[in-house]
Amino acid sequence: MRSLLDFGGWSEARVNAIFDTADVMKEVLARPVKKVPALQGLTICTAFFENSTRTRMSFELAARRMSADVVTFAAGASSLSKGESLRDTVETLGAMQVDAFIVRHEASGAAHLVERYSGKPTINAGDGRRAHPTQALLDAYTLRREFGDLAGRKVAIIGDVRHSRVARSNAELLPMLGARVTLCGPATLLPGELARRGVTLTTDPHEAVKGADAVMALRLQHERMNAGYLGSLQEYARHYQVNDALLLRTGEHAVVMHPGPMNRDLEISGETASGPRSRIVQQVENGLAVRMSVLYHLLVGRGE
Amino acid sequence: MRSLLDFGGWSEARVNAIFDTADVMKEVLARPVKKVPALQGLTICTAFFENSTRTRMSFELAARRMSADVVTFAAGASSLSKGESLRDTVETLGAMQVDAFIVRHEASGAAHLVERYSGKPTINAGDGRRAHPTQALLDAYTLRREFGDLAGRKVAIIGDVRHSRVARSNAELLPMLGARVTLCGPATLLPGELARRGVTLTTDPHEAVKGADAVMALRLQHERMNAGYLGSLQEYARHYQVNDALLLRTGEHAVVMHPGPMNRDLEISGETASGPRSRIVQQVENGLAVRMSVLYHLLVGRGE
Amino acid sequence: MRSLLDFGGWSEARVNAIFDTADVMKEVLARPVKKVPALQGLTICTAFFENSTRTRMSFELAARRMSADVVTFAAGASSLSKGESLRDTVETLGAMQVDAFIVRHEASGAAHLVERYSGKPTINAGDGRRAHPTQALLDAYTLRREFGDLAGRKVAIIGDVRHSRVARSNAELLPMLGARVTLCGPATLLPGELARRGVTLTTDPHEAVKGADAVMALRLQHERMNAGYLGSLQEYARHYQVNDALLLRTGEHAVVMHPGPMNRDLEISGETASGPRSRIVQQVENGLAVRMSVLYHLLVGRGE
Repeated sequence: MRSLLDFGGWSEARVNAIFDTADVMKEVLARPVKKVPALQGLTICTAFFENSTRTRMSFELAARRMSADVVTFAAGASSLSKGESLRDTVETLGAMQVDAFIVRHEASGAAHLVERYSGKPTINAGDGRRAHPTQALLDAYTLRREFGDLAGRKVAIIGDVRHSRVARSNAELLPMLGARVTLCGPATLLPGELARRGVTLTTDPHEAVKGADAVMALRLQHERMNAGYLGSLQEYARHYQVNDALLLRTGEHAVVMHPGPMNRDLEISGETASGPRSRIVQQVENGLAVRMSVLYHLLVGRGE
Repeated sequence: MRSLLDFGGWSEARVNAIFDTADVMKEVLARPVKKVPALQGLTICTAFFENSTRTRMSFELAARRMSADVVTFAAGASSLSKGESLRDTVETLGAMQVDAFIVRHEASGAAHLVERYSGKPTINAGDGRRAHPTQALLDAYTLRREFGDLAGRKVAIIGDVRHSRVARSNAELLPMLGARVTLCGPATLLPGELARRGVTLTTDPHEAVKGADAVMALRLQHERMNAGYLGSLQEYARHYQVNDALLLRTGEHAVVMHPGPMNRDLEISGETASGPRSRIVQQVENGLAVRMSVLYHLLVGRGE
Repeated sequence: MRSLLDFGGWSEARVNAIFDTADVMKEVLARPVKKVPALQGLTICTAFFENSTRTRMSFELAARRMSADVVTFAAGASSLSKGESLRDTVETLGAMQVDAFIVRHEASGAAHLVERYSGKPTINAGDGRRAHPTQALLDAYTLRREFGDLAGRKVAIIGDVRHSRVARSNAELLPMLGARVTLCGPATLLPGELARRGVTLTTDPHEAVKGADAVMALRLQHERMNAGYLGSLQEYARHYQVNDALLLRTGEHAVVMHPGPMNRDLEISGETASGPRSRIVQQVENGLAVRMSVLYHLLVGRGE
C-alpha cells in the first residue's frame, strides 16, 4: 500500500491491520507524552484546496504525534476550477521534496491526480462527493471498538446521501467488513446507483433504523434547499432528523454517529448529539489513532 | 494552578513565582540557542476565534522555545456568534488529545467555556472586554524589572478603558502587587464600576499622570467614534494622547507602556512611543518570557 | 555575510560558495531522511506581507529540513501602505527573539527596513519590483548544473521586465558569473535604464533568443492590460510567448525556465512548459537546496 485514495483493491485483512495498529496508537495517545518517533525526519504536506479545519488538524496532529514535520498548502478557492493549475501546483509541491501528501479537493478524483502528478504517497482527505476513506475507517473502527466485530451489524446512514463522500466511502468499506448498510434520505438526495450487495436504499427513516446497531446522521448543507433538493429545512428535520424518537425503533444498544461539524437540531437533535448513545466525540478521538495508523502503514510499513 | 483564565484565586506569592521563573526564561532567551526541552512531547492548540497575529505569535514562540508542538485553530468570524458551535468546536478539539489550549475570543467568558468543554488546561489570551491576564502579567513584570518592587507605585492607564480587557486585568493584578492604579479616559469610556480599593478613576489625564511611575496608553479602536463614544479622533488625541507634554507631569523616572498594536499619534505620540521612556519593545520581549513561565507552571509545575 | 537583501557587495566567489553548499544540500535531499541538524534550536520568521504560497513553502521546507523552527507572520493587505506600521510590526517581531527573518513585501526596499528595524539576519524573498535574490540564485544554479559554467552563456529573459524583480535580480547576478543577459518585451514593459555591461535590451523576441542557451519566460499579470501596458493578452502571446516555434531559433541544447506560477498558453505554451527542454520543475527542486545553502551561510557559516 503506497497511497489511500479509496478502497479499490482493499481487503478485510488490510483494514484489520490498520485497526490493529490503531489500537496501538490509542495506547500511545493515553500516555502523558503522546509522541512516538516513527516518522522522524519525514515531511508531510497537507494540501487542502477546500477548507476543513477539523480534518486538517486531525491529520496534522496525527503526523506530529509521530514526529513528522507538517507543512500546510492552503489554496484559495480561486485555483479550484482549473485542472491545469492543479497539475502545476502539485508538480511544484512534489519538486519541493515533501514525503507525502494529504489532499482535500472539491473535485472528485483530484486525489488520484495529486498522486500521479507528485509521484508521492497520497492520502485522500475528501475529494468531491467521491470518497473520504479515513472518515469511513474511523467510523468502522469506532464500531469495532463498540461491538468487537462488524459481521451482521446494521448501519443506517441518514441524510444527504447524494452529496456525501462519507456515505459513499462507508458504503464501500462497511460491507467489506460484513456489515449491512442502509442509506436513507429524501428521494431527491438518494441516488439509486448506490444500491448493491450489502447496501440497501430507502426513503423511510423508520425502516432504515429498524434493528440498526448504529445510526449515522450526515451533515446537511443549507444550500441544498435553494438548489431545489429540499422543500424546507423544517420539513427535512421533521422527517429525517436523527433524534431520540427515531432511536426508539433501533435496538437498545444502538449508537449514534455524525462525521461533523453538526447542525444541531437540523439533521440531528442536540439532545441526541449529546446523549448517552452518541459516539461523536469518540469518532474524533478514534480518528486521530486511525490516521496515525494509516500514516504508519503508508510511510513506514511499506514492506506490507 | 491548572489554567489561567483570570486572576480569581491568585495571590501575590503565585505572581512572584511566575515572575521568578520568567527571570530564568529571560536568561534562556539571552543564549545563542534559546530552546529548552521542558514541554517536549506536548501539543498546544492556539484557538484564536478573534484575530491577533502578535499575541498568537508570542504564545507560539513561547511554546516552541520550550520544545512543545503547536497547532493553530484559526476560526473564521462566522462561528463567533453561536455558543453551541463553540461547544462542539471545543469538544472536537479536546477529543484530538491536545495537551492545552490558548484561547482568544470576542465573547467575555469564552475561555472558561473552553476549559469546561475541553477538560484541558487553558490560557485566556483575551476574552471580550473581560480579561487578558498574560498581558497584565507581562506589564507587571516589566514594571518589576524597572522598579524592583511595585509596592506604592502609581500606574496611570489612559484611553478606552470601557472596552479594554488589558485595563481590567491590570486593575486586578497591579493592586494585588501593592501598586495603585488610576484609570483615565473620557467619561463615556470610563465605567464607574471599576473603582475599588487600589483603583481610582478620573477623566483628567493631568491628574492621572501626576506622580505616576508608569503611564500606559490603551489602543483606541477607530470604530468607537462612529459608535458615539467619541466626538472625533482629533479631539480625543488633543485631550488624552500620551505624549511628551503630558509626561512633564509625571515623576522623572516614569516609563511609558502600550499593549500594542499602536495607533501612533492617536493614543500615543510617535515621539513618545520611540522615546527614551518607552518600554514598549521591552514589553514584547518580556511577554515571551512571561508566557514561557506561565506554560511551565501550568504544564510542568503542577505540583504547585 | 549577515543578510541577503540584494547582490550589492557580492562576488562570484561568494556565489560559488553558495552553490557548492547547495550541491551538498542536493545530496541531503536525495536521502530517504532529508534532514540535517544544522539550524537546530533556531527560530526563523517568515514575514510575508504579500502572498506567495510557493516561495513561503520553499523557505519553510528549507528551514525545517535543517531542523529550524519556523513561525509565520501573515500580514493582511491592509498594513501594506503604512511605513510606520511596518516599523512597529518589525520591532515587535524582533523583540520576540526570532533568529532571522525571511521577508516578502510589495514595497521596493522593504527588506532593508526589516533588517534595520529588527536587527536580525534577513533574507529578501521579493520586495516590490526591486529584487528577489534567491530566485536569481536558483536560476543561476540550475544553469550551472546544466552547463557546468556560465561564462559566455546567453540567457534571454522575455516578458514583463518592467515589473519583474526576477528579471532585475537575474540581470544583476548572471553577468557577475560571466553570462550575457538579453531582456526582451514590449517597449512599454522594457525600461531602458536596465541596459548596462552584460545586459542587452530588445523588443524583438527572435533577436533575444538567437543563440541563447536558456530562455526564461516571466509571469505576466493580467492586470497589466487594463493598466494600459498591453493591447491585449492575445496580441502579447502572439508576439512574446515562449513556445516551440520561438525555440527553433535558439541553440539545440537551450533550456526553458519560468519562475512560476505559470499562465500556461499566455507567456509560455503548455507544450513548451511540459516539454523536454523545460527545467521548470528542476528550478523548484534546486530552489530548496539553494535556500538551505543561503540559510546555512547566513546563520551557521558566519565566520565567512
